[in-house]
Amino acid sequence: MPREENIGLVKTQFYTFADPPHEMVLESGEKLGPITLAYETYGDLTPEKDNAILITHALSGDAHVAGTHRVDDRKPGWWDAMVGPGKAFDTDKYFVICSNVLGGCRGSTGPSSINPATDAPYGIDFPLVTIGDMVRAQKELIASLGIDILLSVAGGSMGGMQALDWAIRFPDALKSVIIVASTHLSGAQQIAFDAVGRNAIRADSNFQSGAYYGGPGPAKGLSVARMLAHITYLSDESMRAKFGRDFRATDAPQYDLESEYAVETYLDYQGKQFVERFDANSYLYITKAMDYFDVGAGHESLDQALSGLLAKVLIVSFSSDWLYPPYQSEEIVYALARERKNVSYCAVQSDYGHDAFLLEIDTLSRLVGGFVHHVACPSAAAAPGVQPTASAEEQRDESAGYTSMVELVKPHSRVLDVGCGSGKLLAKLVEERQIVGMGLERSQAPLVTAVHSGLSVIHADIDEGLAAFPDNCFDYATLSMTFQVIEHPRLVLKELVRVANKCILSFPNFAHWSVRSQVFFEGISPITKGLPYSWDTTPNRHFFSIKDFRKFCRQLDIRIEKEIPMGSHPLTHLWPNVFAKDALYVVSAMNR
Amino acid sequence: MPREENIGLVKTQFYTFADPPHEMVLESGEKLGPITLAYETYGDLTPEKDNAILITHALSGDAHVAGTHRVDDRKPGWWDAMVGPGKAFDTDKYFVICSNVLGGCRGSTGPSSINPATDAPYGIDFPLVTIGDMVRAQKELIASLGIDILLSVAGGSMGGMQALDWAIRFPDALKSVIIVASTHLSGAQQIAFDAVGRNAIRADSNFQSGAYYGGPGPAKGLSVARMLAHITYLSDESMRAKFGRDFRATDAPQYDLESEYAVETYLDYQGKQFVERFDANSYLYITKAMDYFDVGAGHESLDQALSGLLAKVLIVSFSSDWLYPPYQSEEIVYALARERKNVSYCAVQSDYGHDAFLLEIDTLSRLVGGFVHHVACPSAAAAPGVQPTASAEEQRDESAGYTSMVELVKPHSRVLDVGCGSGKLLAKLVEERQIVGMGLERSQAPLVTAVHSGLSVIHADIDEGLAAFPDNCFDYATLSMTFQVIEHPRLVLKELVRVANKCILSFPNFAHWSVRSQVFFEGISPITKGLPYSWDTTPNRHFFSIKDFRKFCRQLDIRIEKEIPMGSHPLTHLWPNVFAKDALYVVSAMNR
Repeated sequence: MPREENIGLVKTQFYTFADPPHEMVLESGEKLGPITLAYETYGDLTPEKDNAILITHALSGDAHVAGTHRVDDRKPGWWDAMVGPGKAFDTDKYFVICSNVLGGCRGSTGPSSINPATDAPYGIDFPLVTIGDMVRAQKELIASLGIDILLSVAGGSMGGMQALDWAIRFPDALKSVIIVASTHLSGAQQIAFDAVGRNAIRADSNFQSGAYYGGPGPAKGLSVARMLAHITYLSDESMRAKFGRDFRATDAPQYDLESEYAVETYLDYQGKQFVERFDANSYLYITKAMDYFDVGAGHESLDQALSGLLAKVLIVSFSSDWLYPPYQSEEIVYALARERKNVSYCAVQSDYGHDAFLLEIDTLSRLVGGFVHHVACPSAAAAPGVQPTASAEEQRDESAGYTSMVELVKPHSRVLDVGCGSGKLLAKLVEERQIVGMGLERSQAPLVTAVHSGLSVIHADIDEGLAAFPDNCFDYATLSMTFQVIEHPRLVLKELVRVANKCILSFPNFAHWSVRSQVFFEGISPITKGLPYSWDTTPNRHFFSIKDFRKFCRQLDIRIEKEIPMGSHPLTHLWPNVFAKDALYVVSAMNR
Repeated sequence: MPREENIGLVKTQFYTFADPPHEMVLESGEKLGPITLAYETYGDLTPEKDNAILITHALSGDAHVAGTHRVDDRKPGWWDAMVGPGKAFDTDKYFVICSNVLGGCRGSTGPSSINPATDAPYGIDFPLVTIGDMVRAQKELIASLGIDILLSVAGGSMGGMQALDWAIRFPDALKSVIIVASTHLSGAQQIAFDAVGRNAIRADSNFQSGAYYGGPGPAKGLSVARMLAHITYLSDESMRAKFGRDFRATDAPQYDLESEYAVETYLDYQGKQFVERFDANSYLYITKAMDYFDVGAGHESLDQALSGLLAKVLIVSFSSDWLYPPYQSEEIVYALARERKNVSYCAVQSDYGHDAFLLEIDTLSRLVGGFVHHVACPSAAAAPGVQPTASAEEQRDESAGYTSMVELVKPHSRVLDVGCGSGKLLAKLVEERQIVGMGLERSQAPLVTAVHSGLSVIHADIDEGLAAFPDNCFDYATLSMTFQVIEHPRLVLKELVRVANKCILSFPNFAHWSVRSQVFFEGISPITKGLPYSWDTTPNRHFFSIKDFRKFCRQLDIRIEKEIPMGSHPLTHLWPNVFAKDALYVVSAMNR
């Protein structure tokens, strides 16, 4: 295993640009300058300047992503578990940059900065900024470092918004993008929570129309905003586990109006802490930028907005994240898939809510580390430390079907492998047929392995449909010993021959002589080489023979292009429905 | 169909009690008096005073549940759709009462009332009240009306808390209780949202330590609290559908800090409206009462807290309610089931979030209307307007199994019917064997029918387990043609013989001669009278014969007490595994 260390002492740096009269023109049309961005870097830039990764931060984050500023710092940077020697963003290999956003209050130009026109803080005279403005400012910083092409732009939450904006706005300037616990737009509920936070700040009598610098400032209002936001970062599950109905100090109600439950004290603390490090006006401006975020706006569709994107994409969501729910990530994933982009997606099972992007480090490291490694070294074999995890199906019937399936696929075609497990068939297809492949897998463990090894795989359950894919999206769909496990075979096969020109699938033959004789002579549910499970534990959901499948295809107007009976019996090809253990088919839609 | 009408003009009434020196002693130990409760009544009380229903309201509700106060009222009472002639709470039959809670600000004594000790409003000198205090005050009101036993106490949200408290506190005083979108305790997330709301109010400089009467009052803070709460009453789905990213007035961002999205304007409006009708101190006190709510506190367990309850219980939750999620209702349901109480439960599929209890009127009316009808007339046949909806299983194989099953059940026993559909077998068992029955059903439509017709049925998926039930909870568990549909038969059967002394189950015999010959001679997946579905559309998940089932029971240490081969063939009993179409078993655990 590679060593994992903390990066040690780091220092914030500053870059200033857009000096008048060369101000930056914001999306609103307003001009802003000079602009300073606070940033930190970790690791060394290669002489070729080809190993740089930009990390973008969330609403309340800053440039300090890893390491410590002083030896006695209690806490390291906000994504320290992900950035450092031997970590997912391995600073032994990569040059990692993180900058505080435009509009922020942690060293970058924002509402608390001095307005050169008045020599006083901007306050709410600061122009509104957007995620796009933040990204354009970052681009200036990256250019000033002499970097033309980033290996990756990666971020969680609002950082994911910036990463996505980067990939769309500067498609040539990055090789990959990593979007974690984020979205392509702010929805009504997200805007609503932000709006309540802003209302709390502006309701504070110390807000003074934003001109509170020098005075006490809207600490109570900002604290309320932060407390509310903090609830949305956790989950019901994690709050129950962490706080339950515990009292702070006593065993019984005190019957007064003060905070008495542990969760109240915790929120009070979060609010108080935040007020000490964050500017209320920045909170207004940054939440507003998030609310404006909608990459599909001004385009015909999200798909069209993403059509020019060139980067390899990794998207990660978390099951209990109700602030940026998985479905929002999935909308990006399927739009990218429709546009034939290289995209991988994992919906990580987690109880931590939105904060999971800071806490599910093991899974995130495997996904991100392998993904970035393969972006940096596209020809690399599986990334270091990979232990391929074969799914049950793969273990059972690997040799039989894969070689025959691979032989049926034309070189350089586009293949969708359904139920791809850890990607063995996909990898074989890539190696032997140079295909452009995408896998679908519903189990997290093999999926993570597949993504880690550089394959494009989407976390999805085929039974929930392929409606997100347009017609003829792929040359082939492959299902190796998966069709009998599917709940809705009728719907799924129809969909597969719609989205792919041909579907190659294999399944165990239920009319094999060994099955027939067990049922007929013994009167039992069969257990054979092809159907090795007992009736009560089988993962197979449907049992059908070659004859059944032929009839099924006729009913569905599906053309059987090839039928390849599989098995070692000498009569396999003469009487397939009796002697074939398994069957391999190439089918397509009749109406093509 | 019965006529459904609005109740017309109604008037709020007032009842005052606890005059000094006979003050009410609150749960906190403080004394309070005099206490006035505002209340309204609808319909007529019978001379026997046996048709009264108490409806309890939510946080921001009041006594005005139905009808209008003035002919030109824009809006009727808050549950007008449920209360009136021909409605679920049918005022042609029932005498409906609703009172504003203690601590409220809509006519009942609360922080805005005059403190007789000072002749000024109480403000935060008002003593803290609990849900229990609210209920005890309501009991005084009910007693003053001469009512000893209520037909039902029913409420949603905080109203559900009061209803549950009623059933526990005064078990003899009510025949039934209806708890909608509620909980048995406030969890960490619920307390957290309440705490943020209270912080917003107290952060307002006009709060003046609660002594704001006569002044402007903490309108901004209360408005923020209401806006936040309002988000929790909706769902992500309903907000997306209602607002999306629509702007209020324009097509594009205005790049200023004002509300510009439709959802912001909506929340602004909700906040503003609320401030006009609600007292901020009451908001503090009532949310605090909700936070204190935990019926299990002070007891060994929730089960023990519910052990003395006598009322028939109906619990309803809503799938998208994330403020009072279904799992909280289910905790009450299973605690009641363990205590052998008569309980029915439906988790209504809805996109409306917590507000569904005000909006899913059709489903709620069927559930509540039928339930109350059968409480009022326990011997009644199915309630008026019932169209029994048989499940697929019931339609398929009704005659065959039911009669034989019923014959196997001893009179007056306790029966759990798994996959009960609309309750035909249960009804037959009740009628012919006078059993105490409970059904489990996972589909909403047949479940609603079963509850409507007065049966005790719980919305549950048997594959998610029976872990909530203790050993020997039932005399029998019955599964009519359900076992082959279950995903985890091993787990489920083990559980069934644990929770019930005997399990009576029937299934189609996979080794019937017609199955054998189709598999052997035709080489197809069988379609027979017993197994009538084609392989690709069958709801059956497992295929097994009488021989398979015998072996299965041996492996699981399950005793076969009776094996009844079913079918018309003369050799059915001689060679069951060849000639029985179906099989009926009585099994039990070996280790009893």
